[in-house]
Amino acid sequence: MTITGKQLIAGNWTDGRADSFYGVNPATGENLEPAITAADEFQVIEAVNAASACATEFANLAPAKRAKFLNACADEIMALGDELLERVSAETGYPLARAQGERGRTCGQLRLFADWIVQGEYLDARIDTAMPDREPLPRPDLRSFNQALGPVAVFGASNFPLAFSVAGGDTAAAFAAGCPVIVKGHNSHPGTSELVAQAIDKAVKSTGMPAGVFSLIMGSGRRVGAELVQAPGVKAVGFTGSLQGGMALFNLANARPEPIPVFAEMGSINPVVLLPEALKQKAETIAEGFVGSLTLGTGQFCVNPGLVLAVEGEELDRFISATSDALAKVGCGVMLNENTLKGYQSGVARLRDQEGVEQVAAGEAAGSEKGFTCQAGLLTVDAKNFLANKELQEEVFGPMSLVVKCRDHAELLQAVSALQGQLTGTLQCTESELANYDDLVEVLRQKVGRVVCNNFPTGVEVCHSMMHGGPFPAATDARFTSVGTMSIARFVRPICFQNYPEALLPDALKNSNPLNIARLVNGEKTSDAI
Amino acid sequence: MTITGKQLIAGNWTDGRADSFYGVNPATGENLEPAITAADEFQVIEAVNAASACATEFANLAPAKRAKFLNACADEIMALGDELLERVSAETGYPLARAQGERGRTCGQLRLFADWIVQGEYLDARIDTAMPDREPLPRPDLRSFNQALGPVAVFGASNFPLAFSVAGGDTAAAFAAGCPVIVKGHNSHPGTSELVAQAIDKAVKSTGMPAGVFSLIMGSGRRVGAELVQAPGVKAVGFTGSLQGGMALFNLANARPEPIPVFAEMGSINPVVLLPEALKQKAETIAEGFVGSLTLGTGQFCVNPGLVLAVEGEELDRFISATSDALAKVGCGVMLNENTLKGYQSGVARLRDQEGVEQVAAGEAAGSEKGFTCQAGLLTVDAKNFLANKELQEEVFGPMSLVVKCRDHAELLQAVSALQGQLTGTLQCTESELANYDDLVEVLRQKVGRVVCNNFPTGVEVCHSMMHGGPFPAATDARFTSVGTMSIARFVRPICFQNYPEALLPDALKNSNPLNIARLVNGEKTSDAI
Repeated sequence: MTITGKQLIAGNWTDGRADSFYGVNPATGENLEPAITAADEFQVIEAVNAASACATEFANLAPAKRAKFLNACADEIMALGDELLERVSAETGYPLARAQGERGRTCGQLRLFADWIVQGEYLDARIDTAMPDREPLPRPDLRSFNQALGPVAVFGASNFPLAFSVAGGDTAAAFAAGCPVIVKGHNSHPGTSELVAQAIDKAVKSTGMPAGVFSLIMGSGRRVGAELVQAPGVKAVGFTGSLQGGMALFNLANARPEPIPVFAEMGSINPVVLLPEALKQKAETIAEGFVGSLTLGTGQFCVNPGLVLAVEGEELDRFISATSDALAKVGCGVMLNENTLKGYQSGVARLRDQEGVEQVAAGEAAGSEKGFTCQAGLLTVDAKNFLANKELQEEVFGPMSLVVKCRDHAELLQAVSALQGQLTGTLQCTESELANYDDLVEVLRQKVGRVVCNNFPTGVEVCHSMMHGGPFPAATDARFTSVGTMSIARFVRPICFQNYPEALLPDALKNSNPLNIARLVNGEKTSDAI
Repeated sequence: MTITGKQLIAGNWTDGRADSFYGVNPATGENLEPAITAADEFQVIEAVNAASACATEFANLAPAKRAKFLNACADEIMALGDELLERVSAETGYPLARAQGERGRTCGQLRLFADWIVQGEYLDARIDTAMPDREPLPRPDLRSFNQALGPVAVFGASNFPLAFSVAGGDTAAAFAAGCPVIVKGHNSHPGTSELVAQAIDKAVKSTGMPAGVFSLIMGSGRRVGAELVQAPGVKAVGFTGSLQGGMALFNLANARPEPIPVFAEMGSINPVVLLPEALKQKAETIAEGFVGSLTLGTGQFCVNPGLVLAVEGEELDRFISATSDALAKVGCGVMLNENTLKGYQSGVARLRDQEGVEQVAAGEAAGSEKGFTCQAGLLTVDAKNFLANKELQEEVFGPMSLVVKCRDHAELLQAVSALQGQLTGTLQCTESELANYDDLVEVLRQKVGRVVCNNFPTGVEVCHSMMHGGPFPAATDARFTSVGTMSIARFVRPICFQNYPEALLPDALKNSNPLNIARLVNGEKTSDAI
């Protein structure tokens, strides 16, 4: 395939009508050919209108047809071959193996969702049959199921050019739900975005989907991104990125004449709590795992462990010392783009300026060569200063973590209680400590979407039970995940049919159960026909 | 029981510290004893703090224990006996039979939710077991289920003093989910609110629930209502009422440092589409059902049919004529309170002033006696004027409906396409018309939460498949219902446990499945132990 620098609007590849820009190789700082033409507002509206025009047709397709489309998307992404992996690597600085792993994850989630929607559980079909003789009033026949919400705007994330981008989790979930998608591609990987859009475009055509089901818009976030969220045809927004970016979209969406839900996963600092007995038994092993998690992907994960909390003392010193030794061997990593690097550098500088913060360890210094290289590190602060200073809870995106030293368990509990909402909370502990510290565990549980025990938070499995989200500010709505099959629920709404003729009901609700799905019939779950 | 005019704050009955006010009998305009002492802001905070303090304890109770509490609430409400029914009637102008019916509905939904949570479906327990040998990376053990969101603020509705008020659907759903509740009682029925709060208080005590699990706050909506929504401890809001009231809460909640979800059901005009063959066959029968639905409860239902759409002609004239005859026999009804009556009168006056609107029928004139009596009526307008004037879509709460006369099917489709989001959309049709007019049906389906076929929208069944909600402005979030067992989903969020010791997992996720619930284990639904 050739990267053309064009926009994909409902099946048509056209030049963007605004300015143009280039992808940049973060390892060299050099532009990558070709120039990408940026879309203007009218092209956004064109894409939204095409999505709206086919929304009902796409929503009403049998799940099996949409499943075929999802699988075709995965096939076409695989068919892009090494060209895709090489472009990912060139645009992100990630090694080829990471690109390959992320491609596997992306295709895996498309295929998982394909299997899942055919099973029909996500439809939540419910039937309460008529009771014409009930006193004092008869009960009419009532049947409900989840129908697609309508066109969804998806904002690609910089750090997962495949898995949280053009054909990433939000897009897969929206397609699975039956919603057309308009992606605002991230400017940090425009070539990758276009290649994946080419794959989806082929899948749309080969499986006979309506053309408006997918568009890729590239351009300025402030211009085309804002336009997209405000377009009346858009019915929900999926976003992964910064708190600032997510809240800007959230506020725009709520100020619309018709407010719409924004599912913004805005990252967090993912506290790791080290309990004393675990530290005593294996401070060095924990340190090794911790440094691996902290520096994976140059720390550019929303579940990166940016905060460690523990009671001070000899055991914590052993952890810090082992972490420092391991960090010293960490080479300087390449960050995704210049803005990410600048954000990291200024974030680290800001943290270091705070009362009581000391840097106790660092990775290899960033070289003087071209490219957006950064230095990993570890900071410490005592709990008193941590509790007095909310700025210490602000995410610094990259391989830097802050150890909060608490005087005793009471202060540790106080520090955990002071945390904002988080994607994850990790406990390094023995089983008996976990039982004994139930007060702390309960507090942590109220703060997070996922509790990790003697693992590290990086590595977000795509499966049925994954919760990737959490209380604000980790996400705008703690009730939804952006990873795993539960994420489809973001993009559907229940609709109820009362006293509706059997023959004209949607298949999910017909007596004969032609989709062969489990349904709640008069309060009992069954796959039987009625 | 004696009505004391006190506030119930976490098990303590105390005088409100602001001004005081009276309930009013809308049939006479006279005050009802005793004076109600209104709460101040500090009392709101006291209630919220008590709710926060016991939120974890209440959330972690076994569903069977919360079920016992829900059933005890129903028992205690029944034990209030005729005193409750008489106070409802005195405060609302509803006949005793309506009060009795609504009490049955209120207790019925508490008992339905009690049965439902024990079944465990609402927990959505999911388990993906570890795959330690998976390549390239092992899969950790991951398990998720729905946990309670935290304290919920509930705003009672004026028109359902029992079923959408202190122990109404929102409260029942929040308790079922495991969330403490702080109710802001509606000032239109303070005595009823207190009596029901007394019943809940008894149930809290007899079933050993923590005291903070329930509070009733009475007072000014602008003062204590706003304080409640802004209190950091409150994690979600349930509201039933006007668009203006719902949006005020929605905007307050989104402007908090931590935004929280507001589930506001804000009513709608519930379009009724009359298709030609059905009109031809049974215009008079439809008119009879329509007038019954329009004037039920003096038209004070959020699903009241405030709009009729049809193609003009002899058949529609027959419907209008039959409706006019039936309306002429409708006595003047008593509205809930002075504000509701004034709102109805000014709303009707505003509608009548619009270009092309004519009043074609009226009920019995409101008498000159005391009390808040109103006159039912029917207006007509042609589709051209309807399409040109958004004001004709604004809800007038009460027994008034507007017939939109369309020139032909194309104009009818245009009028339906121009509708805002609605709770319900009704079709009066033959089965073959429903099939033939699929374009119109599809458009209607996109606008509503419930499609009603050859019934009328009033009568919202409490069951598993009910969807009482809909696209904005019918509700703030189309993905949730405020009636039926699906409404519990508003107040839970998934939490995931990774690599967590079996013995310390919540019961819902333990291998042995001690709750004996259906779970999704490695993608298969099963009640088996692992």
